Amino acid sequence: MNFTSDNVTGAAPEILEALVAASSGPTPSYGEDPLTARVSEKLSALFDHEVAAFPVATGSAANALALAALAPPYGAVYCHEMSHVNTDECGAPEMFTAGAKLVGLPGAGGKIEPATLRATLEKAGAGVVHHVQPAAVTLTQATESGTVYTPAEVAALSEVARSHGLPVHMDGARFANAVARLGCSPADLTWRAGVDVLSFGATKNGALAAEAVVFFKPELARSFAFRRKRAGHLFSKMRFLSAQLDAYLEGGLWLRLAAHANAMADRLAAGLAALPGADLRDPVEANEIFISLPEPVTAGLLERGYRFYRWDGPVVRLVTAWNTSAEDVDRMIADARALAKS
Amino acid sequence: MNFTSDNVTGAAPEILEALVAASSGPTPSYGEDPLTARVSEKLSALFDHEVAAFPVATGSAANALALAALAPPYGAVYCHEMSHVNTDECGAPEMFTAGAKLVGLPGAGGKIEPATLRATLEKAGAGVVHHVQPAAVTLTQATESGTVYTPAEVAALSEVARSHGLPVHMDGARFANAVARLGCSPADLTWRAGVDVLSFGATKNGALAAEAVVFFKPELARSFAFRRKRAGHLFSKMRFLSAQLDAYLEGGLWLRLAAHANAMADRLAAGLAALPGADLRDPVEANEIFISLPEPVTAGLLERGYRFYRWDGPVVRLVTAWNTSAEDVDRMIADARALAKS
Amino acid sequence: MNFTSDNVTGAAPEILEALVAASSGPTPSYGEDPLTARVSEKLSALFDHEVAAFPVATGSAANALALAALAPPYGAVYCHEMSHVNTDECGAPEMFTAGAKLVGLPGAGGKIEPATLRATLEKAGAGVVHHVQPAAVTLTQATESGTVYTPAEVAALSEVARSHGLPVHMDGARFANAVARLGCSPADLTWRAGVDVLSFGATKNGALAAEAVVFFKPELARSFAFRRKRAGHLFSKMRFLSAQLDAYLEGGLWLRLAAHANAMADRLAAGLAALPGADLRDPVEANEIFISLPEPVTAGLLERGYRFYRWDGPVVRLVTAWNTSAEDVDRMIADARALAKS
Amino acid sequence: MNFTSDNVTGAAPEILEALVAASSGPTPSYGEDPLTARVSEKLSALFDHEVAAFPVATGSAANALALAALAPPYGAVYCHEMSHVNTDECGAPEMFTAGAKLVGLPGAGGKIEPATLRATLEKAGAGVVHHVQPAAVTLTQATESGTVYTPAEVAALSEVARSHGLPVHMDGARFANAVARLGCSPADLTWRAGVDVLSFGATKNGALAAEAVVFFKPELARSFAFRRKRAGHLFSKMRFLSAQLDAYLEGGLWLRLAAHANAMADRLAAGLAALPGADLRDPVEANEIFISLPEPVTAGLLERGYRFYRWDGPVVRLVTAWNTSAEDVDRMIADARALAKS
Repeated sequence: MNFTSDNVTGAAPEILEALVAASSGPTPSYGEDPLTARVSEKLSALFDHEVAAFPVATGSAANALALAALAPPYGAVYCHEMSHVNTDECGAPEMFTAGAKLVGLPGAGGKIEPATLRATLEKAGAGVVHHVQPAAVTLTQATESGTVYTPAEVAALSEVARSHGLPVHMDGARFANAVARLGCSPADLTWRAGVDVLSFGATKNGALAAEAVVFFKPELARSFAFRRKRAGHLFSKMRFLSAQLDAYLEGGLWLRLAAHANAMADRLAAGLAALPGADLRDPVEANEIFISLPEPVTAGLLERGYRFYRWDGPVVRLVTAWNTSAEDVDRMIADARALAKS
Repeated sequence: MNFTSDNVTGAAPEILEALVAASSGPTPSYGEDPLTARVSEKLSALFDHEVAAFPVATGSAANALALAALAPPYGAVYCHEMSHVNTDECGAPEMFTAGAKLVGLPGAGGKIEPATLRATLEKAGAGVVHHVQPAAVTLTQATESGTVYTPAEVAALSEVARSHGLPVHMDGARFANAVARLGCSPADLTWRAGVDVLSFGATKNGALAAEAVVFFKPELARSFAFRRKRAGHLFSKMRFLSAQLDAYLEGGLWLRLAAHANAMADRLAAGLAALPGADLRDPVEANEIFISLPEPVTAGLLERGYRFYRWDGPVVRLVTAWNTSAEDVDRMIADARALAKS
Repeated sequence: MNFTSDNVTGAAPEILEALVAASSGPTPSYGEDPLTARVSEKLSALFDHEVAAFPVATGSAANALALAALAPPYGAVYCHEMSHVNTDECGAPEMFTAGAKLVGLPGAGGKIEPATLRATLEKAGAGVVHHVQPAAVTLTQATESGTVYTPAEVAALSEVARSHGLPVHMDGARFANAVARLGCSPADLTWRAGVDVLSFGATKNGALAAEAVVFFKPELARSFAFRRKRAGHLFSKMRFLSAQLDAYLEGGLWLRLAAHANAMADRLAAGLAALPGADLRDPVEANEIFISLPEPVTAGLLERGYRFYRWDGPVVRLVTAWNTSAEDVDRMIADARALAKS
Repeated sequence: MNFTSDNVTGAAPEILEALVAASSGPTPSYGEDPLTARVSEKLSALFDHEVAAFPVATGSAANALALAALAPPYGAVYCHEMSHVNTDECGAPEMFTAGAKLVGLPGAGGKIEPATLRATLEKAGAGVVHHVQPAAVTLTQATESGTVYTPAEVAALSEVARSHGLPVHMDGARFANAVARLGCSPADLTWRAGVDVLSFGATKNGALAAEAVVFFKPELARSFAFRRKRAGHLFSKMRFLSAQLDAYLEGGLWLRLAAHANAMADRLAAGLAALPGADLRDPVEANEIFISLPEPVTAGLLERGYRFYRWDGPVVRLVTAWNTSAEDVDRMIADARALAKS
């Protein structure tokens, strides 16, 4: 049983089937194909808003390209200090923006607070030539701590950004998990809450390698196609990215997969949190669990072949996925219980 | 019948099957999986040389990342003036190298001549601070004109490069077609002929989206993993790139597919060249045909639904692929004949 | 006697005196000082147009910053193939634009012809994602061949640029020499002829190190102050750049110095061109002479301590300056005559 | 009386005289002149070590170019969170390194502590592809808080850096003030304490615009000349930078000027700190004073025409310089006293 990450999983059968089906016959390359057009339509429908959508293969590409569309080289991009863009992309945003600065903000539970953002922007030196210029805000949904921003929380942050003239990007590598948890509409969690660009993730949630960069304000997307090509992220056989997204969006598959992953996280968290000495570090709001476990439990589980990361001291990270089985979860809980008693 | 490019095709069945098979079960992410290791081994075996191999999804990524590993920001990269890196990647090499300069060299048939390269390098101003510094040579194999460099031709160019201290990169988006045509070993066409890094293409030749950057001198690859990650080209579910390459390399599939594409190009070229008024612009040595056709033939074929590009004046470009059928080719020839007579 | 370049000279006395005078007393830093404001006013008056002017210390900085204000990273900048930006700045424009591509155009006498520019732009692939996007045209005035564009020639090129939506930059490292030669107004040679941004040079013409980037359309300058700072080209003690420019512009000094340099070039060219076997490669329209000389003359002059560059085969380059003396010129001519006879 | 910064001052008479003297006669351009060679020799002598020295005009250029020589685009540069490179250069290091990440570390008095650096480096993820790679440490001497690192403190930080394989850069915009304060040798404060590259400042301390980037390990300087040229920071009339540095280094001028500035800071600080309600935020170890003053004193001084910055709440910043007069200092103290009483 592998709980190290949702990216250790393969692809959902529906998506694989769509991929195979998409392979037959010639079709225009570089995104001029009908499947890619259909993905755009589906995303516009899903978000109840005309969007400009661009498939890419990785989350880092989605984020870095989106931020490059928003921030000039002399720009500052405000993010949570623990965010993926700031810590786990080996400087991709800096590369794509040609050197913009990520400004990491603190915040409990992986979330930026409006007051923190406001205070930071107020002293950022907009217009002062010595300082990098406020250019964009990026939020991670769900966060790196496994929590989610509510629509109201997103809106409050967007309002601060807007009042300083900044666009808002959302890193939605686990956007599906957030929507599934909140039960809100994708629109409520994005453009209606002030989000201008979304990295809409699929890879972690059942695709092979597919994300869509979704612009709710097409005028922000003007440079995007050129930036994507120039970054080597325009697929010649685009149908193979689009087929994944098409199947992912079909009949609510994306939400079903995410809801399942969330449910498994809840189940696992509940089981582990009931152990003596266990302590959830953050509320489980998506498919990630950060929990302190007694050392014998952690060590024993790893010894028995369960795979997950030691995170920070006694805290471990466990990630469930679209295909995590309840049996596996229950077996792990049982083993943990046994270890806790011994 | 679509002869616009080899990238309008889907994927070979063997590769699709491998992709589906690779999906089952958890596996380490980011290239730590066994499939990725196997691809490296297969490439080392294929090239009869220990290699450092890095799967990526697009040819532009492969080329730009490889060149960034070779050239500093103040470097000059010598290429054919019509090469893909110079004209068709929207400046990807410039982005990845942080501003190195591509110096386009002329040359008949899409090929650089050693004398041209030598003369250019001799006056390039190596060591002179005012000029970008000679950093690398990149050759395209097969070329954008549908021709191929022989091992001896590659070696002659590499010798010039080497005598100026420059590494040699080969853009092998159609490397398979070149090897299939020449009947030489992959080793003879690369490291034995002085090539240091190869973009080993698969996408155009039956994969969905997969290339491997192959370093024959591992010390040149030191920065590569970081550059790939930073460019958003490190796949979390790397198995899906590696599965394609694994199947592509299995049992000589890559060469069979390319040999078929080449044979179809020969067949089509022979048929068209025999038409009155037709004139092959370049010898057909891979799977691309550049041929002058009488206007009524060109117009008539397009009208009948054949798809291909008008290239330059009366010259059209026709590209065959791994799945082009002899029937389609013969039908097109027959139609062209009919048009030529009318 | 040193005719290798106009940058082997020191500074004009008027400029040195202004520099010393500017040193006394405290003054606001980073360009908030009155001298810098006065330079802007003088430039606006000189060009008969409201301008946004930014002092910098070097011509490469002026050019690269100006082009970065005009061209995105995925842009193409059209220039003469022999232009300084393309060949003598070690890739500065590529660095400052974050990778835009300089497209070198051929042209006799160092000048681009409108037909060449038009033909290039027509096939440049504007809007096509595979190609770098036409972003700006840059002209060198006077050119690297020592010729000048007339206002009509500039206007014709600007019209082509404009018809493709491109702004026009002028590298005026020797702008003064061009104006002095043409006898036209600075306005006629710039904004009235369609130039949007000018690198207004002073260093070669009597300053220590000072140029001004002059925007005739302030809206193009929006990012400039940040780019200049970020490039380390915002001087804290800006007064020392501005003092140079202020003195340079005072009472027509800039034109007097350039007119003198031009006159000395004429005098030297006339003397040398009269030698048997001598042949001017280009008309002498600024302060540079490109002339074929018989080898014994060239060798003899160098032996006697005259300093100038062998350029290309029998062609040598001689550059006069603001402080070249007629005596030195005449002595060199006399020596050359003696050598030609022997 | 202007205490806003040391860069509101003009230039020292000795330096101006040297500049004027350097102007006469032709001399090779781009640093091939004898003055530039002499500066290198003087710096080698001053530091008791063979150095590779490169004059540039601004501190931002010196720092950004030095860091670009040390850090790859995927690198991390560790600095104090309040350091000039991190907060006051509009992202110059990011531009010159093509996107390396500055990692700001906390620390009292503007100083990084070895334990902080060590803890940061230990968890930095060296070798892990997801994270920017530790590349360099940069220290500011004197710091932005007006304090100085002792040789032992520098050595302790260098040792941590060295144990992680990282080179050490020192931003010495106020290096002279630090040396003057510490009374140590320049060697003890740099290479003997593990510093590899120094931005040796002169602009703030009596020059017009001149700094030298000093490499104590010439092998680290290999790319520097190209990077400087490419950044537009290679002066054609280099003699005018070198003349400033030459005079600055002559006969200990640099130390005399700095010692004077420091003495004036001490005098001013002593006078102000004695006021009721005044509180020095940091010890005064160079030429900057950060002190809390009662609001009536601050407001009253500003009203009377004294110029300085309100920094943070009741804290103001006062900077003395090479030409601050004791009379001005005493008058300000007297005025402050009067204000404090009223």
